[in-house]
Amino acid sequence: MELECLPLSEIMTASRRLKSVLHHTELDLSSTFSRMTGGNIYLKCENRQKTGSFKIRGATNKISAMVERGERVPVVASSAGNHAQGVAYAANTFGIPATIVMPAAAPIAKVQATEGYGAKVVLAGTCYDEAYAKACEICEEEGAAFLHPYNDYEVMAGQGTLGLEILGDLPTVDVILVPAGGGGLLAGMIAAVKQVNPRVQVYGVQAEGADAIARSFREKKLVTTDSASTIADGIAVKSPGNLTVDIINRYGDGVLTVSDNEISGAILLLMERCKQIVEPAGASTVAAVLSGKLDVKGKNVVCVLSGGNIDVSFVQSIIEQGMVARHRRIRFVVKLRDKPGSLVQMLSVLAQNNANILTIEHDKLAAGLKPDETSVHIACEVGGKAHGDAVLKALRESGYEVEIN
Amino acid sequence: MELECLPLSEIMTASRRLKSVLHHTELDLSSTFSRMTGGNIYLKCENRQKTGSFKIRGATNKISAMVERGERVPVVASSAGNHAQGVAYAANTFGIPATIVMPAAAPIAKVQATEGYGAKVVLAGTCYDEAYAKACEICEEEGAAFLHPYNDYEVMAGQGTLGLEILGDLPTVDVILVPAGGGGLLAGMIAAVKQVNPRVQVYGVQAEGADAIARSFREKKLVTTDSASTIADGIAVKSPGNLTVDIINRYGDGVLTVSDNEISGAILLLMERCKQIVEPAGASTVAAVLSGKLDVKGKNVVCVLSGGNIDVSFVQSIIEQGMVARHRRIRFVVKLRDKPGSLVQMLSVLAQNNANILTIEHDKLAAGLKPDETSVHIACEVGGKAHGDAVLKALRESGYEVEIN
Repeated sequence: MELECLPLSEIMTASRRLKSVLHHTELDLSSTFSRMTGGNIYLKCENRQKTGSFKIRGATNKISAMVERGERVPVVASSAGNHAQGVAYAANTFGIPATIVMPAAAPIAKVQATEGYGAKVVLAGTCYDEAYAKACEICEEEGAAFLHPYNDYEVMAGQGTLGLEILGDLPTVDVILVPAGGGGLLAGMIAAVKQVNPRVQVYGVQAEGADAIARSFREKKLVTTDSASTIADGIAVKSPGNLTVDIINRYGDGVLTVSDNEISGAILLLMERCKQIVEPAGASTVAAVLSGKLDVKGKNVVCVLSGGNIDVSFVQSIIEQGMVARHRRIRFVVKLRDKPGSLVQMLSVLAQNNANILTIEHDKLAAGLKPDETSVHIACEVGGKAHGDAVLKALRESGYEVEIN
Repeated sequence: MELECLPLSEIMTASRRLKSVLHHTELDLSSTFSRMTGGNIYLKCENRQKTGSFKIRGATNKISAMVERGERVPVVASSAGNHAQGVAYAANTFGIPATIVMPAAAPIAKVQATEGYGAKVVLAGTCYDEAYAKACEICEEEGAAFLHPYNDYEVMAGQGTLGLEILGDLPTVDVILVPAGGGGLLAGMIAAVKQVNPRVQVYGVQAEGADAIARSFREKKLVTTDSASTIADGIAVKSPGNLTVDIINRYGDGVLTVSDNEISGAILLLMERCKQIVEPAGASTVAAVLSGKLDVKGKNVVCVLSGGNIDVSFVQSIIEQGMVARHRRIRFVVKLRDKPGSLVQMLSVLAQNNANILTIEHDKLAAGLKPDETSVHIACEVGGKAHGDAVLKALRESGYEVEIN
C-alpha cells in the first residue's frame, strides 16, 4: 500500500534527520512478560529517549523540515507535558527561539525542565484550551509558527520513525501496541509499518476514561469526548486529530482500552521486573497485554513504552496501592481493655509474628465500646497474604477481637 | 602486566562461556550526570542483567568450568541476596541441582524468586554466619560443591567479563567505578581491565558503614570490620576475601566511600533522570561521582550499576526522604480556636495556596494551650521551597501562629 498524505519516503527522511540528534532506543525482550502471556513480549524503551518521551521525534522532524524550507521562525507550543519538552529541546538543537504556554497551575518541575531545555515558558489560563488560545495569540503577535502536538503530517512522520526502528530491529514482529491520545504516534507508526510490511498488526491502546480514538475507530468517524479522566496524563485527550484518526480508522487493526488499575499494576511490574520507570501512558501497552485484551500467544509482540516522565510522588502512590493489592499491607481494628499495659501486650503478639507497624491510632469514641474498652486502629507491613493471615490468626488466638477494615 | 592467579585468558574464556547465556548489558551515556559533573558519565546497566545483577556472571562461569572439568555435582550457596539468584539461575541452566541456604528471616520475595529459578531453599539460622555453617553441613552430607560468592578465581573471572565488555564498548574509557563488598566484582574487573589496558583506572566504591576493603587498601593488608551497617545490602560485608583484596591492593587505583544519604540521592536521580531502578549497592558508584569524591572533569567515566534488586517498599521510603530533602513536603503545627468552623477557615488558606494536604491531626493535650485553643498538626505536599514558604507566609498573614516541626 501507499499512503499519499504520509508517504514512506517522508518517514524515511525523518529517520535520516533524527539519526544524529536522538537515541535509537533499545528493544528489550522481557522474559517475565513473555512467561506471563505466552508470547514473546518486547519493550521499545522510548521512556529513555532524550527528554524522556517519543514527542521529541515529531518536534525535531517538524522543526528540521521548517529549517530546510527556510522557515527559520520562532516556534510556539501549548502543553504542560512531553510535547513541551520535546519542542523546547528540538528548537534548541536548531538554535530557534521557542515559547511554551502552560496552564498557570502547571507543576513547577515541568516548568523548570522546559526552561532547562532553553525555552521561554508563559503561564496562562486554567486549562489547556485557554493556554492554547494564548499560544495562538503569541503566534500572531510574533509571527511565530504554532507546533501542533499531533494533527500535523510532519509531526506524525517524526513519530513514525519509531515504527521503522522496530521493523529494523525485529523483522519478525507480528503485533505492535502503541499508546494513543491525540493519535500522532499511532497514526505515524501505522503509516510507517503498513507501508513497509502490511502483515504486521498495529493496535492503539487508550485509557478507559479517555477513549475518543477507540470510539472513533468503532464508529468509523471522528468522535470527541466530553471528559478525559485517567491517571495517564500523556494520553488524556478529548479531541483527537482529524488527520490522525483518518489514518488510524483506515489502516489500523484496532484500538484497545485499559483501566487505570491495570495501568498502575503494569507500572509496578515494569519497576520490579524490568527495572524501568515508565509513565502511565507508556505503561498502557503492557497493561493491555497483561490483562489479556489481545491474544498474543506464540506471537512476537512489541509494547511501545512511550515515555518515562512520572513524578516520583506519584510513583509512591502507585507503590502504596500495589502493596495493598498484594496483601503486603494489612489494616485492622482491635478492641483493648483501657488500662496500662494492654497495648504493649497486643503489640508483642505482632512483634513475635514479624509484622512491621506502619501506623497506630487510639479511638475511645468508637460506637459499641464498653466504658473500660478502647479501640485501636493498626496498619502493618507483612510479607504477603499468608503472612498477614497468620498475624491476624495469632491475634485472635491470643484472645483479641480483630476486625478488618 | 600479567596476573598469574587470574590471567586474561581465563577471563576471555569466561566471556565465551557467558556469551550465549547472559545479556551483554548496555553502556548508556547519561547527559544529566555528565552535565552535573563535567565528565562524560556512562552507566553500565547491569541492573538489567538476568536475575537483576552481575552475580550471575561469576556463578555461571564457575558452574560452567566445573561441568567442563566433569565435576557434575550439586551446588550449595548461602546468601539472601543476588548471589542466591545467580547461583540458582546458573545451576538451572546446566541442569545441576542447587540448594541455597538463607537466614530464617529472609524476605519471602527473595525466597520465592530463588525457588522460581529452580533452586531448593533451606532456611536456617538468624544471620549469615549460621546460614553459612548450615551450607557447609549440607555440602559434606551430599558431596555438593560450595560456591563462594567472591573469594574464588573462577567467580572473579566471571565478574571480570563485565570489564571486557566496557573496554570493547568504550575503548576510550579513562575511569571505571565498581561497587565493592566482598571484592569479587572489583578484583575481577581490575584483573580484566589492567591486563588489557593499564592506562584505565579502576576504583572501588564502598558504603561508609561497611568499608573493610577501603581500610584494607589504605593499610595494604586484609582488614575486617566488626559491623557492616548500610542501606546497601549488596555490599554490606564485614570480611572481604583474602584473594580479592590481594588483587585490589596490588593493582587497584583506590577505594572511595559514600554515605547512605548520598546513595539514596543517587537512587532517586537514577529513577527521575535515567528512568532506571537501581539497588543501593548499584547506585553507590553514581553517588561517588555526584558527591565529587573523584575528579572526573573531561574524563570518560563508567559507573557500574551492579544490580537492580530493590524492594519497592524501600523505593517508597527513599522517595519520601527525597521529597522532604527537596522541600516538597512541609510539616507544621497551627493553633486554632476550639470551635466549629476554625479548621475549615484555616484549610481554605491552604486550598487557596495550592497546598495538598497529606495528613491532619488534632491535639488538644499539647502543652501551653489555653482552654479554648486546640493544636493541629499538618503535613502538606508543595511544589518546592518557594511554594512551601509562600504557604506558610499566607497562613501567618491570615493571623495564624505557625510552628514548623
